[in-house]
Amino acid sequence: MAQQTNCAVGAKLNPNYRKLAAGYLFPEINRRVKEFIASPKASNVKKIIRLGIGDTKLPLTSTVIEHLHNGVDKLSRPETYTGYGVEQGSKDLRKALTDFYWENYSVCLEPEEIFISDGAKCDSGNIQSIFDIKSIVAVQDPAYPVYVDTNVASGRSGAFDPSFSCYSGIVYMPCNRSNGFFPNVPEQHVDLIYICSPNNPTGAVATNHQLEPFVRYAMDEKAIIIFDSAYSMYIKDPSLPKSIYKIDGAKECAIEISSFSKWAGFTGVRLGWTIVPKALVTADSKPGDEFTPWSLWDRRQCTFFNGASNIAQDGGLGVLTEKGIKESQELIDFYMENARILSECFRKLGFEVYGGTNSPFLWIKTPNNMKSWEFFDKMLEEANVVITPGSGFGPSGEGYFRVSSFGIRENILEGVEKIESNLIL
Amino acid sequence: MAQQTNCAVGAKLNPNYRKLAAGYLFPEINRRVKEFIASPKASNVKKIIRLGIGDTKLPLTSTVIEHLHNGVDKLSRPETYTGYGVEQGSKDLRKALTDFYWENYSVCLEPEEIFISDGAKCDSGNIQSIFDIKSIVAVQDPAYPVYVDTNVASGRSGAFDPSFSCYSGIVYMPCNRSNGFFPNVPEQHVDLIYICSPNNPTGAVATNHQLEPFVRYAMDEKAIIIFDSAYSMYIKDPSLPKSIYKIDGAKECAIEISSFSKWAGFTGVRLGWTIVPKALVTADSKPGDEFTPWSLWDRRQCTFFNGASNIAQDGGLGVLTEKGIKESQELIDFYMENARILSECFRKLGFEVYGGTNSPFLWIKTPNNMKSWEFFDKMLEEANVVITPGSGFGPSGEGYFRVSSFGIRENILEGVEKIESNLIL
Repeated sequence: MAQQTNCAVGAKLNPNYRKLAAGYLFPEINRRVKEFIASPKASNVKKIIRLGIGDTKLPLTSTVIEHLHNGVDKLSRPETYTGYGVEQGSKDLRKALTDFYWENYSVCLEPEEIFISDGAKCDSGNIQSIFDIKSIVAVQDPAYPVYVDTNVASGRSGAFDPSFSCYSGIVYMPCNRSNGFFPNVPEQHVDLIYICSPNNPTGAVATNHQLEPFVRYAMDEKAIIIFDSAYSMYIKDPSLPKSIYKIDGAKECAIEISSFSKWAGFTGVRLGWTIVPKALVTADSKPGDEFTPWSLWDRRQCTFFNGASNIAQDGGLGVLTEKGIKESQELIDFYMENARILSECFRKLGFEVYGGTNSPFLWIKTPNNMKSWEFFDKMLEEANVVITPGSGFGPSGEGYFRVSSFGIRENILEGVEKIESNLIL
Repeated sequence: MAQQTNCAVGAKLNPNYRKLAAGYLFPEINRRVKEFIASPKASNVKKIIRLGIGDTKLPLTSTVIEHLHNGVDKLSRPETYTGYGVEQGSKDLRKALTDFYWENYSVCLEPEEIFISDGAKCDSGNIQSIFDIKSIVAVQDPAYPVYVDTNVASGRSGAFDPSFSCYSGIVYMPCNRSNGFFPNVPEQHVDLIYICSPNNPTGAVATNHQLEPFVRYAMDEKAIIIFDSAYSMYIKDPSLPKSIYKIDGAKECAIEISSFSKWAGFTGVRLGWTIVPKALVTADSKPGDEFTPWSLWDRRQCTFFNGASNIAQDGGLGVLTEKGIKESQELIDFYMENARILSECFRKLGFEVYGGTNSPFLWIKTPNNMKSWEFFDKMLEEANVVITPGSGFGPSGEGYFRVSSFGIRENILEGVEKIESNLIL
């Protein structure tokens, strides 16, 4: 219908949105859960346990709460009230993050290279806009849907091919058992490479040894790596890199996006950051030019964005105090104990379980090669537990499901009990 | 240099950013002020008074502070903690805004048509992305620079022509003395029309009589009006419309973007909203289709955005209480008294002054037809007062300057005193 009127005069919609297959993953999960609850099958169901979406459940820590209250109080007095902040974020917060990277990762950054934002989702969606529309995009497969969807909406793909569950024009880098859930570098030339480590959804953490070839590839091909480290604080193993800038040369080819969400429970408060090194090179720019990725991201943020909430930024400063860091570590330890409990449950039942040791996510093979959505429905109907179907993250996610350890202990234990008692295997 | 390497293989920058002329207006103002302060001319200057950027200065009101603290407290307890909210905004806040529109403007909206965001700047920058890249864009001239800049960055213009201070491919609708600072409808076909009322920068408020032809034009041409009502709470005259939806037919052709920033001092807290009626029509969609402006904005917000800060949203609920509305009105009355004082000062000195009665902005003709930036420098050097050069808002702004009434009384009076004593006319 719509296509018939495409030649008509007048405002038209961005046609790329028509390519976006089906709904966004999480709304689709919510839809199915609602449908189930309303169905006769659910007449005896007392409670649904959600091990799906990776949403934090523990309250903010006392240091953060104190800083947030203080941030609010500052707005109540004329002498401390602040209106428009700097679009790139408060000086103090940029400086505190620079110090954090130096003290904890031995990574040296300038405060100006860190752009504060209202979260890693927005930044990982918007970062593509500073690059040429003809850029060839490569993603890990499976991957967080935002990387692909924002490039599709912006016009960097062809149509969705339902038989392969992928978009033409996007390069999918399969992550599976045979490669330890980390891909080889692309065989062809690509321009933008999205890497997430610890990975959402697989929970796999890239080693130095795995990242080095990507940095070499990016240097050789003048490609840009967009490195999502939103879960890096869940890495316990000191040999695993928490920042892409641990790899030699990464400052010339990689952007890092990260967040206070999973680290400190800021999923609702909204605060993240993106690092665009001034040394970053593209095929049409070199450091010091007027137009570089750094200067374009700066301009993009000043034009389309007006800074993160000043209250949230005060909260972020709280996270970065000595006490704040310690308290956030306790949140992480709590969720990682959930991961251990969940992992044990699924292993005991004979599932093939990945992730969950340096990451809050478990990535689990479905039994009997069931399709992901099929198993989603089975889990929902039999155990009344919501998991996330792996196929929602890309074609290589088919036959897997993701379990999130973000939950209060009572729910995790109840979920485990329901799965152990009611799932028919 | 960059163009020489354009054929090289590798990631390239979005070339549209190269078209964006000079810096964004406000950073350029800050640069000039800094330069002046560091110069020998400023050796005896004790204080610079800023009447430039429209940044709120009064603290948040007690009801809002209470709601913000309460929002923070909720995050400190497991039973009230919330993580990811709905991307479109909290149900309560959407409902409260619906009620507000009904009770105050007799405008009937569905809560689902109101999308909460982190501010009107982001929304007015992002709204273009749901429309076809080939859309012809019309802006009031002068206008808030974000409308033009975001369309240029996204590829909807040709090059910047420095001799006319405008971009080819963008339709400028001149607003000047002869048309009462409100334009006639375009003579050609356009697809997207940005209208801001009360206007930033001219302070002019569009009447029903002025808006009606635009709604008729949009219906006839299947154009979309993007109506920025961020300053609507400054309208005192009951005959002037505070919402585009007061005009018959506007729900079929207009999107309205608004904000808590200037209404309640949320410039730093970050909270705004965008209304996309379900009845909105484009040339390639009609209400009820799967793809409509409403469904695309919904999808855009779910994909590129993760909701406004939950704390800020609690603050917004505070603004919308009976007490909150009354208190915000006091903030507005205070700023409008500033506008009166500033207006009187400039009139007394013989300036031609517009705006400032139903708007916080004064739009003033430079003396002796001076260029805007020339007068900016003169005002800075002689009176040590920062104003905003009109030419920064578009070619028809040349020869004008904007004065903002957002300030504490002491500063306004000090500015007036400096201008009256030191400006050489």
